[in-house]
Amino acid sequence: MKKSLDRREKVLDLLYQNQDRYLSGEELSNKLGVSRTSIWKYINYLREAGYQIESSSKIGYRLITPADNLLPEEIKRNLNTEIIGQEIIYYKEIESTNDAAKKLAQSGLQEGAVVIAEEQKRGKGRLGREFCSPLGGIWLSCILRPDIKPTLATRATYIASLAIVKTIRKLSAVDAKIKWPNDILVGNKKVSGILTEMGAELDKVDYLIVGMGINLNFPLDTFDESLHNKVTTIYHETGKKISRVKFVQALLEEIEMVYKKLYDFKDILKEWKAYSYTLGKVVKIDNKKEEIVGEAVDIAEDGALLVKVDDKVRKFYSGEVSLYHQSFNSGN
Amino acid sequence: MKKSLDRREKVLDLLYQNQDRYLSGEELSNKLGVSRTSIWKYINYLREAGYQIESSSKIGYRLITPADNLLPEEIKRNLNTEIIGQEIIYYKEIESTNDAAKKLAQSGLQEGAVVIAEEQKRGKGRLGREFCSPLGGIWLSCILRPDIKPTLATRATYIASLAIVKTIRKLSAVDAKIKWPNDILVGNKKVSGILTEMGAELDKVDYLIVGMGINLNFPLDTFDESLHNKVTTIYHETGKKISRVKFVQALLEEIEMVYKKLYDFKDILKEWKAYSYTLGKVVKIDNKKEEIVGEAVDIAEDGALLVKVDDKVRKFYSGEVSLYHQSFNSGN
Repeated sequence: MKKSLDRREKVLDLLYQNQDRYLSGEELSNKLGVSRTSIWKYINYLREAGYQIESSSKIGYRLITPADNLLPEEIKRNLNTEIIGQEIIYYKEIESTNDAAKKLAQSGLQEGAVVIAEEQKRGKGRLGREFCSPLGGIWLSCILRPDIKPTLATRATYIASLAIVKTIRKLSAVDAKIKWPNDILVGNKKVSGILTEMGAELDKVDYLIVGMGINLNFPLDTFDESLHNKVTTIYHETGKKISRVKFVQALLEEIEMVYKKLYDFKDILKEWKAYSYTLGKVVKIDNKKEEIVGEAVDIAEDGALLVKVDDKVRKFYSGEVSLYHQSFNSGN
Repeated sequence: MKKSLDRREKVLDLLYQNQDRYLSGEELSNKLGVSRTSIWKYINYLREAGYQIESSSKIGYRLITPADNLLPEEIKRNLNTEIIGQEIIYYKEIESTNDAAKKLAQSGLQEGAVVIAEEQKRGKGRLGREFCSPLGGIWLSCILRPDIKPTLATRATYIASLAIVKTIRKLSAVDAKIKWPNDILVGNKKVSGILTEMGAELDKVDYLIVGMGINLNFPLDTFDESLHNKVTTIYHETGKKISRVKFVQALLEEIEMVYKKLYDFKDILKEWKAYSYTLGKVVKIDNKKEEIVGEAVDIAEDGALLVKVDDKVRKFYSGEVSLYHQSFNSGN
């Protein structure tokens, strides 16, 4: 399904396909129609990126160990999507993938493009909160350009949360659940958060930036101890590291599958509810004006949380509530 | 109320205050604490911008005729605002002031900042339509950062339309009216349009860009003849040119006054209705699915147009309708 492989991707492909033998610089250069100097430069780039590549001036190159970093050419190898991730912009380190994606979206970058970074220096949560994003996690932002009104933009958060929870369950087998509106929990601790931002006219979304952060392959003590009852990482929960490249590939594929149902939001909601942590629980809503305790009973078609308070069902939108589950304390 | 005047503004101020005599380079340089070369450079800049300034190496400089362009230092002279227009970014020519303002807003430019251009090369109307923006008009975009939800962003269009209609009436005495949602008419022809765009989280507006275009000082035949029954210019209607600097100053002051009532939207709506072209008229709503004819009876508190159709009042949001007045044909 891939649209095109550029030369860098082809070099990597050839190295992967020929791990049992040496590929000479000449062979690579002939196959790809580029100079041997170009090949040599790219090999060095891969080494810097953490790949172990044996080489000998006489016999050529051989890939020993792939690096588990998130190079676009690595993610796009065998990526089975049509839109999401067909363009990937990679940073070793960045302030915020959402901010970078916003700028790129404004400059016209197409739907499906993904900004990914090994590390965010100023990762953002909702309402300007900090979001800790160390090495070993997945920090990416996806540009979507659906033809919808701004009032429907909330669907993007549903799409992302569903895609993340499914990917985590598929690759790590932990019992991940979605805490409305935008967190993924394992047990009752946060492993992932979503920040959706948009650029829009009053009548029409120009772009959505769906930022996703997943605490994947790093130990719990990366976080301050004061947070250990609120957050966790997949690695901490399972003791196993997951290939980050495979995780990102699976995630992008899930996003695409769910995104295709954007206009059948009922379908998305139905699946979403199966993974909900929030529904059926007693929740506390603090909407600045008042504090309300009630049972979260359902999600409305417009994405609002329906809470039964004194036998009356009330609607709450993400912006109005900070949501506390009775069983434990956790920020949202 | 002005917060600060930079040196360039001070030079212009001194020239204005001393139009009856020559100001020597030395005097200017002493008063402002800058070199005579700096003074000389700025005088040249003003001349290039269209100011007629007499000079003599012996006796100094004297302002003969101010230029009617929109230099920030000219607009900010005697501008009576606290927020709107305290920072002005000026372009002789630009693709789109809204696009420039968006980029600046994203880089953190503060509330009230204004991007203004003598001419837009790719002015934008709603939903990507073209917006003709030749020399002699007013083309500006204002950055607002209210603490509101995206659903309330529509208020910005009400604020801008009210400010524009009041400014036109004040300075030209034509009977301008507001055609819902975002045009200003004289007679039944468009003299001004508004394009509001936003950057937002799902719960909170980050910035609003309120783009305004006003056909002020240029003749009607700037437009293609096919449009002459749909558009007009203040100059065509009155035969008089208005100082563009004064127009912008008055406009920014009106915007600020109306913007201060953002949280009392009822007040804004009340005034807005007094200038409405649409209310009380039979309108045709075309919302892709169906064509509805009814009487526009009121504006709802959320900014929707209320239309009485077969004795039932229905709500229409700007995105859903193209609106046709029975008396004439006009795009919106």
